[in-house]
Amino acid sequence: MHTFVPETRLSSRARAATSSVIRDLLHLVDRPDMLSLAGGLPAPELMPVDRLAAAAAVVASPRAFQYGPTEGMGELREVLGARLACRADDVIVTTGSQQGLDLLARVLVDPGDVVVVESPSYLGSLQAFRASGAKIVAVPGDGDGLRTDRLEALLTRGLRPKAVYVVSEFANPSGATLSADRRRHLVDLARRHGFVIVDDDPYGELRWAGARSAAMVDLDGGREVVAALGSASKILAPGLRIGWLRAPARLADAVVRAKQAADLHTGSFDQLVAADVLGDDRFMAAHAAAIRSAYRVRAEALVAALQGELGDVVDVRRPDGGMFVWAHRRDGGGTAEWFEPALAAGVAFVPGSAFDPDPGGSDGADGSASSPASAGMRLCFTTLEPVALSVAVHRLATTVRDHGSQGPAPGDWGPGTGCN
Amino acid sequence: MHTFVPETRLSSRARAATSSVIRDLLHLVDRPDMLSLAGGLPAPELMPVDRLAAAAAVVASPRAFQYGPTEGMGELREVLGARLACRADDVIVTTGSQQGLDLLARVLVDPGDVVVVESPSYLGSLQAFRASGAKIVAVPGDGDGLRTDRLEALLTRGLRPKAVYVVSEFANPSGATLSADRRRHLVDLARRHGFVIVDDDPYGELRWAGARSAAMVDLDGGREVVAALGSASKILAPGLRIGWLRAPARLADAVVRAKQAADLHTGSFDQLVAADVLGDDRFMAAHAAAIRSAYRVRAEALVAALQGELGDVVDVRRPDGGMFVWAHRRDGGGTAEWFEPALAAGVAFVPGSAFDPDPGGSDGADGSASSPASAGMRLCFTTLEPVALSVAVHRLATTVRDHGSQGPAPGDWGPGTGCN
Repeated sequence: MHTFVPETRLSSRARAATSSVIRDLLHLVDRPDMLSLAGGLPAPELMPVDRLAAAAAVVASPRAFQYGPTEGMGELREVLGARLACRADDVIVTTGSQQGLDLLARVLVDPGDVVVVESPSYLGSLQAFRASGAKIVAVPGDGDGLRTDRLEALLTRGLRPKAVYVVSEFANPSGATLSADRRRHLVDLARRHGFVIVDDDPYGELRWAGARSAAMVDLDGGREVVAALGSASKILAPGLRIGWLRAPARLADAVVRAKQAADLHTGSFDQLVAADVLGDDRFMAAHAAAIRSAYRVRAEALVAALQGELGDVVDVRRPDGGMFVWAHRRDGGGTAEWFEPALAAGVAFVPGSAFDPDPGGSDGADGSASSPASAGMRLCFTTLEPVALSVAVHRLATTVRDHGSQGPAPGDWGPGTGCN
Repeated sequence: MHTFVPETRLSSRARAATSSVIRDLLHLVDRPDMLSLAGGLPAPELMPVDRLAAAAAVVASPRAFQYGPTEGMGELREVLGARLACRADDVIVTTGSQQGLDLLARVLVDPGDVVVVESPSYLGSLQAFRASGAKIVAVPGDGDGLRTDRLEALLTRGLRPKAVYVVSEFANPSGATLSADRRRHLVDLARRHGFVIVDDDPYGELRWAGARSAAMVDLDGGREVVAALGSASKILAPGLRIGWLRAPARLADAVVRAKQAADLHTGSFDQLVAADVLGDDRFMAAHAAAIRSAYRVRAEALVAALQGELGDVVDVRRPDGGMFVWAHRRDGGGTAEWFEPALAAGVAFVPGSAFDPDPGGSDGADGSASSPASAGMRLCFTTLEPVALSVAVHRLATTVRDHGSQGPAPGDWGPGTGCN
């Protein structure tokens, strides 16, 4: 008689998989007095509930509740094609962009294949790549995104990644946007060295300052090397689980086959609701402007408070969009040591070490020193009003003054994985 | 400069993956004059559009459109727990039961691990298991479902599967229901030999005759060996993509971690809509009764027409529920040879060879002869009225009389994969 199910009966991938550190920590911060900068959720009060409900009433029909095509419903692909200035047939609908990542990992990665990510990185991507057995190599980023010069050095020395993953606009967690020069450089490297660029862009429409550089998928004439992921989660509603993917033709075909096995297709009702709202240009223009305006006010309030109360301790990047501020300890120490005292003081953030794709590693695999992710902290400004952001920063500043750099980092923020 | 993306850059899984034969063939049958028995869709006119739309209006709220927990929304888990007579915490919501299959494959199967399926089998399951690198071993079924005696013989000779997959009620495509004796036998074999029973049950609520045997998950005291999958697709609406899964605790934990990587969570709005309708006991009782009543009339019309017009050529099982009739050539010849002439005559079905998990193999891997799936044909009765079903069978009978058993089977119905 077997004792069931012993750990050894699980697949090696299942045994290696870790839960999301951030999901786990969000349970900790679910206290009424807590001011949380740790989440990554869109502001609920800006969710266009009435417009979504109106769309649901309009699209309800047998077809909305029936099985649909794996590639996505025609209405939504048309709307996305128009928004993305591409052919509708070139857009595959996914169950959130997380599924886009997972499907790309499945069709590109054999166990042991190398995938390059930026450090710090969105660790939901690592969960997906690791689930396919990828060996993750981290390359450092800075305020202009992934250091493509560092990537090139690794390629020259023989690294052969299957894919390079970037969040090109307002990255999670760093807030950095990949510069136009680096975009061109990365596309050129992909062509020369035969890897796929996975360009994840959930935040691009949340830009309130500066000009957007051309997307890499548009620099990639002939659709040869870029797989571009998008999402309705930040601009419309994450609960619909609507993402999309554009990829070179052979890769796109493989993704559709993989999606048949994964979930047959994305929800028909959700797709038609999203098509109705995303296709309403006048509404979307006003709605996106309202989100950008609110987030800008919140971001500026957070940055001002950080500079006023903690400017001597942390360096803060002022974002031009997105959902996050990345603050970096000037003394290079880890921010994880502030986490538990901050919670006790009623404020939560995510220590940068949670986003380190290569904890304890050489950060770039080339042996050189660089700013480790662990000196950073991710602060999400979307769900708090400016006054609450000020109070949150005051609590954080008090914590930092009281706890300085004493003691070891609590808990293990190591090779866990992140969500949002 | 690389020619991008060459086939060789895809993962081995992606290169091995085949598209759904049935999905591909459904494009062929999309003609206005075609009477299709080839689909596997619920009847659209029985979809409770008004009740679903009313639910959508009621549940619309910021929370319905926000990120949610990976395990599923509390409301839906409570409703499912009540319907399944289990704890809400024991139910994991999946993006359709296809995702449940895929997640179980991910957490159970390492490349080369054996998974046993019934022949003929729902090939969406094979897509999922093969995507994780499973070696599929087919064991024949009959009118009482999987031949557990044949499975035991293989186990005795050393076969060590990670999982055994069955559709225990009104299987797709055979329509067979696993007998009570075989359920007990299978649970006993699982305990003795240390495999997981994956019991997929999308059709169980579509029973209009006979008594339901105890589910294997309920025979499995202590939740040790059975992972049970369910779905709202056949009883409510496939377009919501709502499935669920119950599994031994360690397996369930692994599934949740895998789901984080796969799509973070199933759509919040869809879950709340499903919870509202599935939790309305009075509505669901009437709605399920209406579906059963309509399907019973259609199934009986189809069986009567087949027996009347083709009774000398095919043996037909009269179903007690579900969506399919399985007809078997009495002379043992393949039904694929009838497919193209039948299309020309304006009727479509799915040849049994499309459901053969081991085409050209020994059907049981034990070298013994058995009825091959290729002599069967799957006829779906859900979407045609009785008169249309009679016309469809008449066209089929005319085709069979005209084409008898001449010529080779057209096309390759071989190792492809099926959908629905």
